[in-house]
Amino acid sequence: MTAEQTDDNPLSVSAADSDGPAALMVPVGISNRHVHLSREDMDTLFGSGSSLTRLKAVKQPGQFAAEETVTLKGPKKEINHVRILGPLRSETQIEISVADSFVLGVDAPIKMSGDLADSCPIEIIGPEGRVSKSGGVIVAWRHIHIPCDMAAKYGLTDGQEVSVQIEGDRAGIMQRVMVRATETSALEIHVDVEEANAYGLKNDSLVKVVK
Amino acid sequence: MTAEQTDDNPLSVSAADSDGPAALMVPVGISNRHVHLSREDMDTLFGSGSSLTRLKAVKQPGQFAAEETVTLKGPKKEINHVRILGPLRSETQIEISVADSFVLGVDAPIKMSGDLADSCPIEIIGPEGRVSKSGGVIVAWRHIHIPCDMAAKYGLTDGQEVSVQIEGDRAGIMQRVMVRATETSALEIHVDVEEANAYGLKNDSLVKVVK
Repeated sequence: MTAEQTDDNPLSVSAADSDGPAALMVPVGISNRHVHLSREDMDTLFGSGSSLTRLKAVKQPGQFAAEETVTLKGPKKEINHVRILGPLRSETQIEISVADSFVLGVDAPIKMSGDLADSCPIEIIGPEGRVSKSGGVIVAWRHIHIPCDMAAKYGLTDGQEVSVQIEGDRAGIMQRVMVRATETSALEIHVDVEEANAYGLKNDSLVKVVK
Repeated sequence: MTAEQTDDNPLSVSAADSDGPAALMVPVGISNRHVHLSREDMDTLFGSGSSLTRLKAVKQPGQFAAEETVTLKGPKKEINHVRILGPLRSETQIEISVADSFVLGVDAPIKMSGDLADSCPIEIIGPEGRVSKSGGVIVAWRHIHIPCDMAAKYGLTDGQEVSVQIEGDRAGIMQRVMVRATETSALEIHVDVEEANAYGLKNDSLVKVVK
């Protein structure tokens, strides 16, 4: 099947199933542990009316890594220098790895960003104060950011789970990868550091959607 | 296909391909970073004629975690309290994770245990001395230990690569898993901590060989 045929059948998933040139190849973005802050928690941690300082842009439009970092304090240990990602959000959310959850001594569920039901508590320490969150800590569910028009072209829908084929010494089929289709997304699969290392992935490695 | 039929066809791989009761289910053993020492390096690090103290047995017969630990010193940083696994071996071998390789600043290849070609250098520091190894550091290639008779029953051969299906939130098909069949093996799939966390595995989780 060619890309042209796919264009004629926008709801077909055959393009992504094919080994041909029309397969959807997705560049990898590796997420290290990070924090999204609410306005209220930003005030507490960095001072009333404080703002984030842009360190560098990340691939998703409008988002950036900030110069500011915080300390996460769990029942067991602390992790320092945890990067904040901007801009501010309506709710504070802390994304860590499974290894981090053992270090902190917390039982963080694997959840999509924004789904904070059953997320676990943590204390966040900043230069101007600290906040005890009753929830907000998750291990991020791996996901593919994709613009809506491209998703439609490949027969993918927001909220769908797909599999991706990864080649190399640590080859595997990563299953249950969530599709996140929005108008402003840049095409990218987000995995955490442990997923990247376990599958032999680097930033901008290409992986193939296989269903 | 039933287990009885499989016994009648010892070279068939159908049992492992099947979804039926005869599928080969393998318990998980998670390897943290560790060191195997030669007699010569043991002498240098812990004193001439010193011996390892058994802390606890591991699943593979005759092998054990020792009370003794060493420090690994790379070009970038050190990692302390790295466990030694006994007994002593003919060659010193250091098994680390990909994350550890970034911390140490070394470029460790993914290799089967014992395959030290192209392995990378490291300094090992013990209580009585230090050794600079010109090689010996690897990231272990994931593998299944299996007794020869069981391997034959499931149509598996030493050195073969197989795939395993893993279920759960981080479901996936782990490909290129090496079969290590020896007379004295205990059935177990060895993965490192990052592989375990990326696939949602715990010690003694069961995974299914799918080809």
